[in-house]
Amino acid sequence: MSEETEVTLLVLDADPPPRLGRLTGRARILHGDESTLARQLPLADVLLVWDFTSDAVRRLWPGEGPRPRWVHTASAGVDHLLCPELVASDTVVTNARGIFDLPIAEYVSGLVVAMAKDLPGTLELQRQRRWRHRETQRVAGSRAVVVGSGPIGRETARLLRALGVVTALVGRTERPGVHGAQDLPPLLSRADWVICAAPLTDATRGMFDAAAFGAMPPSARFINVGRGPLVVEDDLVDALRKRWIAGAALDVFAAEPLTPQSPLWDVPGLLVSPHMSGDTVGWRDELGAQFVDLYERWASGKPLPNVVDKKRGYVPSHD
Amino acid sequence: MSEETEVTLLVLDADPPPRLGRLTGRARILHGDESTLARQLPLADVLLVWDFTSDAVRRLWPGEGPRPRWVHTASAGVDHLLCPELVASDTVVTNARGIFDLPIAEYVSGLVVAMAKDLPGTLELQRQRRWRHRETQRVAGSRAVVVGSGPIGRETARLLRALGVVTALVGRTERPGVHGAQDLPPLLSRADWVICAAPLTDATRGMFDAAAFGAMPPSARFINVGRGPLVVEDDLVDALRKRWIAGAALDVFAAEPLTPQSPLWDVPGLLVSPHMSGDTVGWRDELGAQFVDLYERWASGKPLPNVVDKKRGYVPSHD
Repeated sequence: MSEETEVTLLVLDADPPPRLGRLTGRARILHGDESTLARQLPLADVLLVWDFTSDAVRRLWPGEGPRPRWVHTASAGVDHLLCPELVASDTVVTNARGIFDLPIAEYVSGLVVAMAKDLPGTLELQRQRRWRHRETQRVAGSRAVVVGSGPIGRETARLLRALGVVTALVGRTERPGVHGAQDLPPLLSRADWVICAAPLTDATRGMFDAAAFGAMPPSARFINVGRGPLVVEDDLVDALRKRWIAGAALDVFAAEPLTPQSPLWDVPGLLVSPHMSGDTVGWRDELGAQFVDLYERWASGKPLPNVVDKKRGYVPSHD
Repeated sequence: MSEETEVTLLVLDADPPPRLGRLTGRARILHGDESTLARQLPLADVLLVWDFTSDAVRRLWPGEGPRPRWVHTASAGVDHLLCPELVASDTVVTNARGIFDLPIAEYVSGLVVAMAKDLPGTLELQRQRRWRHRETQRVAGSRAVVVGSGPIGRETARLLRALGVVTALVGRTERPGVHGAQDLPPLLSRADWVICAAPLTDATRGMFDAAAFGAMPPSARFINVGRGPLVVEDDLVDALRKRWIAGAALDVFAAEPLTPQSPLWDVPGLLVSPHMSGDTVGWRDELGAQFVDLYERWASGKPLPNVVDKKRGYVPSHD
């Protein structure tokens, strides 16, 4: 194991992630932040991007010279990492594929049922101490379009179908059980629920714009658990104010965290949550344990799972 | 059909229910309310209790003399009808079995996921324009106890299981797939979710009291979609204030509607909704169509479905 002790593992986060104790004595562990990263990157063999809210890697990745051979991010999305130099390099990038699938699918399912049953309205009326019976919507038999056919999108479709929702899954390319992007407009036009669980890439940035919201029926509700810049936020606000669609829920935003001054907090029909859909109790432990597993594979020369196709900007699905 | 035109159908509601047009010319239809019911009951062959929020039938049912041969209520529960005289009579009572099963099951499932994901907290923070990330709970693998093994309880259990919740169903008597009442205490002690979907009878009135809440773990959340008096409301409020349990949602109450003065509106951890869990768009049409179907069976001498066991106070399940 003498070779391993030569490995320098740089952790982008001031605090030590859980479960990394298993690597003690097997790697030299450095901690860094945005201010130290440029200096530390050339020293590191492996970079663990634990603070996935930072885009410092994308900004500070060295153009040439020594650099990490492997970068792992404790997130599903990799949009905060990929710069042309990293894409062009032979550095391997892996993600936290698998950890967030079920939590996000549950979160989306909860939003769908809560919106169908007008739970936000009920809570507001409770605050006003007003008893006002309303008729609610059936979930079973309603139609959903899930955009993004990776593990999160697929798990979301599975749970929605378990609730009786007629669910179409849309990916970049058509394959069995997955519609190609060309099917999106007709699917949107008949959707009660449009769920964005796509990766943020050059191809998807801003895909939910005025044209997309205009294609949805007035009864549609839109949910984004992907990344903020997939949505043109001004267009969504406009679509809600003009009642082109019936409602929306955003868990991700172009700029996070939202400031108290953000106009998004009080758009009628818009539910705002703080990028938490995938974060169930124990998630940090799971992310730490996943990294240690990957590290042990890497250190013993085994092939890594969860390898990002850097040109596409996500881990391709093979099923 | 000349016989049928002799039938007098009394509708307890000032407004005509939908779908009863099909009975035009086949029954003489009277409308009544609490002030006219005592006078009208002896004239009616059939009573349709459309206004199921009224307990006038229970109070005004004639002890002897002419009375309806058949009473149908546009509700699942029959606690608002049954008085000793009606129970002892040969009058047949039917209910709206089937209409509310899926809507209530969806409503409960939505509450479970929304509470696991702290959607009420998210909405309150949004109102305050505060970005505060929290860890949420996984739904899959959590444990539910559904009390009430009729169609509503069974459908609720089916949907919760579809979400991965380990769900036990409890009825009055043990049968395949259903626990008997004797299993309730140990089940409560391990429950994350306790869902009351039981009929209100002498055996169930007040069953959720201090002892029941005390038997639940501090992480448990309680949901009542049955009838208000199944719960000792003061005991529930106490259990929430003392943090014996983590939260509750009531859709039904001892006295409905809640007045603006009710202390229940702002108990910490208590979600209050206005008896709407089963009422999806189109429910009144479905209730009207169901009654017409039953009427046609009755008029042609066929046996009625949904017949209430008046001594037990509900329609017994045979599966």
